[in-house]
Order: sequence, then C-alpha cells, then structure tokens
Amino acid sequence: MAEIQPIVWASNKLMLLDQTKLPRQEIVLELTDYRQVVAAIREMRVRGAPALGVTAAYAMALAARQIAEEDPSHFLPLLKEAAEEIKAARPTAVNASWAVDRLLVLVEAEADPPAASQRLLAEAQAMQEDDVAANRRMGQHGARLLRDGDAVLTHCNAGALATAGYGTALGVIRAAWEGGTRFQVYHTETRPFLQGARLTAWELVKMGIPATLVVDSAAGLLLKEHSVQCVIVGADRIAANGDTANKIGTYTLAVVARENDIPFYVAAPTSTVDLSIASGEQIPIEERDPSEVAQLGGVRTAAEGLEIRNPSFDVTPHRYIGAIITEEGIVREPYSTNLAAVVTGTHAGVR
Amino acid sequence: MAEIQPIVWASNKLMLLDQTKLPRQEIVLELTDYRQVVAAIREMRVRGAPALGVTAAYAMALAARQIAEEDPSHFLPLLKEAAEEIKAARPTAVNASWAVDRLLVLVEAEADPPAASQRLLAEAQAMQEDDVAANRRMGQHGARLLRDGDAVLTHCNAGALATAGYGTALGVIRAAWEGGTRFQVYHTETRPFLQGARLTAWELVKMGIPATLVVDSAAGLLLKEHSVQCVIVGADRIAANGDTANKIGTYTLAVVARENDIPFYVAAPTSTVDLSIASGEQIPIEERDPSEVAQLGGVRTAAEGLEIRNPSFDVTPHRYIGAIITEEGIVREPYSTNLAAVVTGTHAGVR
Repeated sequence: MAEIQPIVWASNKLMLLDQTKLPRQEIVLELTDYRQVVAAIREMRVRGAPALGVTAAYAMALAARQIAEEDPSHFLPLLKEAAEEIKAARPTAVNASWAVDRLLVLVEAEADPPAASQRLLAEAQAMQEDDVAANRRMGQHGARLLRDGDAVLTHCNAGALATAGYGTALGVIRAAWEGGTRFQVYHTETRPFLQGARLTAWELVKMGIPATLVVDSAAGLLLKEHSVQCVIVGADRIAANGDTANKIGTYTLAVVARENDIPFYVAAPTSTVDLSIASGEQIPIEERDPSEVAQLGGVRTAAEGLEIRNPSFDVTPHRYIGAIITEEGIVREPYSTNLAAVVTGTHAGVR
Repeated sequence: MAEIQPIVWASNKLMLLDQTKLPRQEIVLELTDYRQVVAAIREMRVRGAPALGVTAAYAMALAARQIAEEDPSHFLPLLKEAAEEIKAARPTAVNASWAVDRLLVLVEAEADPPAASQRLLAEAQAMQEDDVAANRRMGQHGARLLRDGDAVLTHCNAGALATAGYGTALGVIRAAWEGGTRFQVYHTETRPFLQGARLTAWELVKMGIPATLVVDSAAGLLLKEHSVQCVIVGADRIAANGDTANKIGTYTLAVVARENDIPFYVAAPTSTVDLSIASGEQIPIEERDPSEVAQLGGVRTAAEGLEIRNPSFDVTPHRYIGAIITEEGIVREPYSTNLAAVVTGTHAGVR
C-alpha cells in the first residue's frame, strides 16, 4: 500500500495535501510563506492535532527563513510574532503550541539568523519523523486491545491524514490489521466538515479494512445494539487529569459507550498531553464559522434567520475513558499520576 | 402568523407541501392516485408520524374512489391490497397503520363502493381535524413544563409539518410561547435528511421563536454545559411500556440528557401508542437508502468503496423518558399502566 503522506518538505517548499478537496481531488499545495501555512491551518486544508504540530514546525522554519532574508536585525522579535500567529491559527489542539514553543527555545540559543532558520528546518523534519515513529509504536501498544471478530467505532479522522503519517486511532486499527487481527470498522461522517465520510473512509478503503459509514447520530444505535465492541478516537488536547478535547461529538460517544459497557479509548502521542492544565475545563474550545453548518456542498440548506453555534470540539471527562494509548504505552486511571509519569519519562505506561 | 398546512384536501385532490424542497421552495404536490401518495411517503415529501397517519387516510380515500370507479365488483379485496401498500410505505411510524386499519373497519360495514369511498374521505377529513385539535390540547398540557428563561432542545422536526398542523414537540413549544413564556430553542440539523436545519428552523423562524441550530453531535455539549434545561422530541411509535421509536439520534440525546440530569420529554398523540407491542424491541426500524448519507446537495462526498448503514430511527427505552405528553394529559411512569389507561380512555393522564 502506498503510504499516505499529508505533509512533505521538498525543494525548499512545504507540500500539503489539501484535505478540503479529498476524496474527490488529490491536490498538493506548495507553500513558501509561513502566512500561507497559517491560512491553510485556519481553512482546515491540514487538520488533526499531530499534523498541526508538524505543520506549525514547518511554518516556523519558513518564517525564520523569510525573516533571516528580509529583516535579520530583528530576527528574534519578528519570529516570536510569527510564532504567536501560528499558535493562534487554531486554539484547541495543543500540538501546534507545543511544537512552536519547542522551536523557540532552540533559536534563543542561536545568534545567527540563517543558522537558526536552518536549525529550525532540521528540527521540523525530525519532529515529522518522530511523529510517524510515535504513531507506529502507539499502534503496536494499542493493537492488542482489538480482537478477531470485533467491530470498532471511530469518529472524525485520526488517521495518517491527521498526523505526519500512519495515524493515531487509525494507526492502532492499522497496526492490529497488519498484525493479522480481522475486524471491521464503523465510522461516523463527522459533521460539519465530514472528516469521517471523506477522510477516514478514504484511508480505510486504501488500507483494505472493511468500513461502514453512519451519520453521527446513528453511532448511539450501534453502541446500544452492541454492533461495536470498542470505540477508539484521537485527541486534540489531553489535560493532566486525562480529560480529553477531541472533535465535537466525542463526549456523546463516550457517555453512550459507558452506558452500554463498551470500552472507550483515546489514542494520542504524549505531545498531545498538556500537563500545564489541570482539567479539561481550561481547554479553549474553538467555535468555527456558522456557514460550515448552514450549507451543504455550497448550497444553503438551513432556513434563513436563525442563529447557529458551531463548536468544533468537546471535552470528554477522564472518568469515561478506559485507556489512553500513547507511544510510551497504554495509560489507565489514575491519569493524573500516570500521564505525568509517561510524559516526563519516569514511567513507561502499562505495556 | 399564517398557519402551516402541510396537508390540504381541496377540489377532490390531496395537496401535499413537498418537504424535500423546503425551505428553498414551497411546492405543492397535487395527487389524485393513491400510488402517487405512497411514492410521496416513501420519498419523504411528507413525513412525521401524525402527518403520515392523515396522509395514509387520504391515500385510502383516493384508493377507494379509484377502485369504486375502475373495478367496484372487487372493491374490498382491492382496497385491502392498497391498504397493505400504504402501510408498507414506511414501516416504523405506527400512525399510518393505525389510520388505515381504522378506515378498513368502516368500509367493511358499507356495501356500496361509492358510498364507502365517500365515507372514507369524510373520515380522513375528520382525522385531519382531530390531529390538529389533539396537538393543540397536547400543547396546553406540555406548555407548563417550560419556564421563563429556559432553553429547550429538540431533534428532527415534530412541528406543524410533521402533523396535520400545529405540531407535537414544536406544538408544546408554540403553546408555551403563545402563553407568554419566554425561552429559546436549540435544535439539531438532523442528518441525513436535515429535517432540523430545513424544517424545524423554518417553522421556528415563522413563529418568531429564538432558534439556534447545531450539528447533531454538538447536542451533547449543550447538555453537558447545561445550555438547555429540557429536551422535547416527537415519536414515531410508542410501545405499551413507553419505549419510544423516534428519529435516529433520539436515544443518544436521551442518554446524555439523563447523564446530566436534564429532563427528556416525548410529545405524541395517543394514536402513536401501539399497545399491541409490549416493548420497543418489537418496533421495526426502517433502513433507508445509503445514498442519503453518501452525498450532500447532490454531490457524492463519501469516499468510494465503503459500506453505509442508514437506520432512520432508534428506540429510547422508557427509563430515560421523564414524561410522555399526549392530548389526554402528561403521562409518567409506570408507563405500562398509565399509557394503556390514557389510550383506552379510562384515565385522563396527570393534567
């Protein structure tokens, strides 16, 4: 199977597979200005927390190169301004902030702008490779949660497209499949952006894994009927206590899964864990443009004259989460102890 | 406010407001053949359990007139065949079967085909008037469940369009508003058919009630945040024990509402109660065409090569339902006793 590569650095350009056009068109954007990258993030041409981390890192590398060429005497203050723009493009996923802050530390130790921008590019590339490697390890850990004959439910897209490659929740599914476990996948369409119908479906078909699409509100019926034996989703930010922000609708799935005694798992790299916030109440929830909800395929479907709310994420309290699958191992309650241990490297999770 | 009249009998024709075209176009279908009515039901040009009951009654009247003209010597057997076709058009809502069976009893006592068809038409018209009257009474009973400053969540469309007029869940909302209570309404878009975004929004805007639209999977966030103080939905069939079939996604709302201690109400006329079935497990769930899920606005959005399930309804177990609002009063647990009493007229509910 050809690997899905949503983010490629080549010929001194950042190439992004435009996810707003999938699955009908495979269009690659070639970006050389960090502001183009910020716009691409905001317009969800690239999305998914780990992918946003890597993309933000490349945006920093591009910004550094631009500033080194245009105004090297103000390199650090201008780069910090660009960093704020990049972090603000989408507020919920922590990975972009995590990547940008990690890069800023590096350049503070480097006085020469061209050298600094070279250093950032190398680090962005390393982060991209780290992400794929982390996902493969996460897949190995999580794969043993799936059994032959199971059906697993996922929401939104936590696949190769949401990462630098391989995927988080879909990475676990892929690793289990590649390990010979045979199961099927149910996935939601994920309104309003249809990441499920457009992106997860496309990835599952490419992988040859049997996939069945349902509307978001039909997932509850699957759980009630026990048509699925577990739920696996990705994450945009995980608080220190395990509360998890993910695509709108995730909280609902977690509640209905628990009501039916079906395990609910989160798959995310440790870079998604934000130990600086104690609980999910402190995670900012992005509200996106109402037009995403009011129209379908470019045609206004909603009646005129009404209000629309379009929250893009919700927070699932940790008590609904059976396990968090990271590249360091599977983490279970008590999350407040075990997540910190995994993130700071003092504990390797329950392998 | 001009009354919304989804079903009109005039000039010996059945006029149906084509609900697949709302809110962009207000097109009225003029039907003279019962088979056209069956097709309109199947294509969801008319939908909503009470509206299907009245429409099925008119379909019977049209069928009787056609048979009386074309083949009066086989009137009763042919009418029974037509009755089966009408009942099978959509299997989950009980109201169509209820209406058709009630009409068949009438014609068995009438030997003359033209007189029988006249009798059926008169009865269909009476059922239409009864339905509006029942909804107004239901509204009066239910209105006292809403308080000033509340926000109420509804799903799908249980408004005038889903009935002969006035509405069930939206009828309760309307009655409370007309009674001077001031509140706001949140409603889901209701994929795949968008009855919420297209129909409920249109009705609420016409009534001047503040309305906010969300995608289906955002309803859980509203419940978790306590942005709404109660949920009111309609019903397609209610079993003797109170288990309620309604639009796909209703079960999920009920579970998440209870998880957050928010009352969940069903508003439906007693004709929606099916005492012949003990529990919701016996309610047939219609699976509709996958193409409704695979495309948006006529454009295929889902990736090719995957399976799609499109269940149109789910069943909410009675334990999640705080009250069932009928035209005879508000019914609460134990439903198995109290529903039977209300339906058979031995008990007038808790008024």
